[in-house]
Amino acid sequence: MESHELGYFTEENSAEVVAGRNANAKDARVKQVMEIVTRHLHAAIKEIEPTQEEWMEGIQFLTKTGHKCDDWRQEFILLSDVLGVSMLVDAINSRRPKGASENTVLGPFHVGDAPEYEMGTDICLDQKGEPMVVRGRITDIDGKPVEGAKIDVWQANDEGFYDVQQKGIQPDFNLRGVFHTGADGTYWFRAVRPKHYSIPDDGPVGALLYALGRHPYRPAHLHFIVSKDGYDEVTTHIFDPEDPYIHSDSVFGVKESLIAEFKPVDQPEKVQEMGYEDKYWDVEFDFVLAPK
Amino acid sequence: MESHELGYFTEENSAEVVAGRNANAKDARVKQVMEIVTRHLHAAIKEIEPTQEEWMEGIQFLTKTGHKCDDWRQEFILLSDVLGVSMLVDAINSRRPKGASENTVLGPFHVGDAPEYEMGTDICLDQKGEPMVVRGRITDIDGKPVEGAKIDVWQANDEGFYDVQQKGIQPDFNLRGVFHTGADGTYWFRAVRPKHYSIPDDGPVGALLYALGRHPYRPAHLHFIVSKDGYDEVTTHIFDPEDPYIHSDSVFGVKESLIAEFKPVDQPEKVQEMGYEDKYWDVEFDFVLAPK
Repeated sequence: MESHELGYFTEENSAEVVAGRNANAKDARVKQVMEIVTRHLHAAIKEIEPTQEEWMEGIQFLTKTGHKCDDWRQEFILLSDVLGVSMLVDAINSRRPKGASENTVLGPFHVGDAPEYEMGTDICLDQKGEPMVVRGRITDIDGKPVEGAKIDVWQANDEGFYDVQQKGIQPDFNLRGVFHTGADGTYWFRAVRPKHYSIPDDGPVGALLYALGRHPYRPAHLHFIVSKDGYDEVTTHIFDPEDPYIHSDSVFGVKESLIAEFKPVDQPEKVQEMGYEDKYWDVEFDFVLAPK
Repeated sequence: MESHELGYFTEENSAEVVAGRNANAKDARVKQVMEIVTRHLHAAIKEIEPTQEEWMEGIQFLTKTGHKCDDWRQEFILLSDVLGVSMLVDAINSRRPKGASENTVLGPFHVGDAPEYEMGTDICLDQKGEPMVVRGRITDIDGKPVEGAKIDVWQANDEGFYDVQQKGIQPDFNLRGVFHTGADGTYWFRAVRPKHYSIPDDGPVGALLYALGRHPYRPAHLHFIVSKDGYDEVTTHIFDPEDPYIHSDSVFGVKESLIAEFKPVDQPEKVQEMGYEDKYWDVEFDFVLAPK
């Protein structure tokens, strides 16, 4: 139907008239996406029934969010994060068979060129924090060890900051490393127990969180990308269940299956065996890779 | 229900978990609006199933739209306009009894201090364009003339530009004026036939329009704000039905009831009576005010 056969715009036919204008869109996907966006946008407006002042508040919120974005800060991604959209898009793009490790958001702190280490290396380069051993196995969905899997790990320090947020304070590549599994599929490395931290809250997204009675914290976690040719790459975190924010991650990254256990170890012989002085945290977590 | 009783975020319960975090919102309206926004946003994402690359294109579109906004340009309002949201919000806020004049969008070119004139004044200060007489009556919903109604009119010139867009080219306050009705409720003034024009199309919103196979034009129109104490203020346009874009206004401002007739008058005695040389356009349009 030609767009003008729908008649002029009215409150009732608004979404159909707007989407009807896209009959000559160059790209079928763009046309489809904008039809869906228009339909849900109009449905939301009809349900909200905003006053002109509320509409202008919305315009100003989006404008301020745009103005906050620069080469270092992406406030629209932050908005997507706190509204659960980033996690939803991740979930849609990483549906896996039952039993396979689940994804969560990548986050902005991954770097591509972290150093490669032998198993057992301590990725904490400044000895600050409570010592932690992380270990486990990479298997396929049938439980067979995956040899040659790449494990890319990164985490915040015990004050909740990544190295890239504290250039000159933390050593470069602090708490980052890349490991490769051997024939038994196991991995292990040393680090320090991570701490929860706040997402940037000094912009319009922070103001929105506070208006909604929410906090900006992410519970303590370690990031992993586990990959091997022929398998679906897993971008994920493992979380500390004792963290005060475990049930209220500001970006909704926590999944039941990604909760690890941080076990305190203080038996002298075990502590000594691992080369620590006093005590350490033991974290065991296995990853299961699904075929591509 | 406490937010964590909903469990962790999943693809299925995503909108409920996100909105469930707002239990302690300071303002009930903000909470309500964000519940509706979240629900429709997640429904749209689930229907679109964007790839990560498409999601990033969306983020970048919003960022570019924000970066285009400054003191002189409001690209998010433009986005709202071309998606029919501005018209929808206007429609929701100006529901009137049948027979009353309908609203349409205000647009960005109104100024608050246009000169007051006697009826019959020519608001075209530079004599450029085809002469036009605009006339009609302001009545209430029972057909009784409204005395002392204020008619604030403004329009683009015969090249499609408002005075404020051509400072130094057009005289200040060209094609603007304020009139007040007498006891009979009638009004009339002289102007020139307006021309269609393009909304700003050099930003991301223009790029979106072209990607959708749409054009950026608004059909020729005159703007009116008709007001009188005790009546619902009417912010509207009247449109030229001969305009090539009458069925495809880029901001969806056209309503059936706002289409005027632009009648050519060339009978020598009529032309002479109005003080023109050759011919002129006669536009008759009545406004009906609803009680507040």
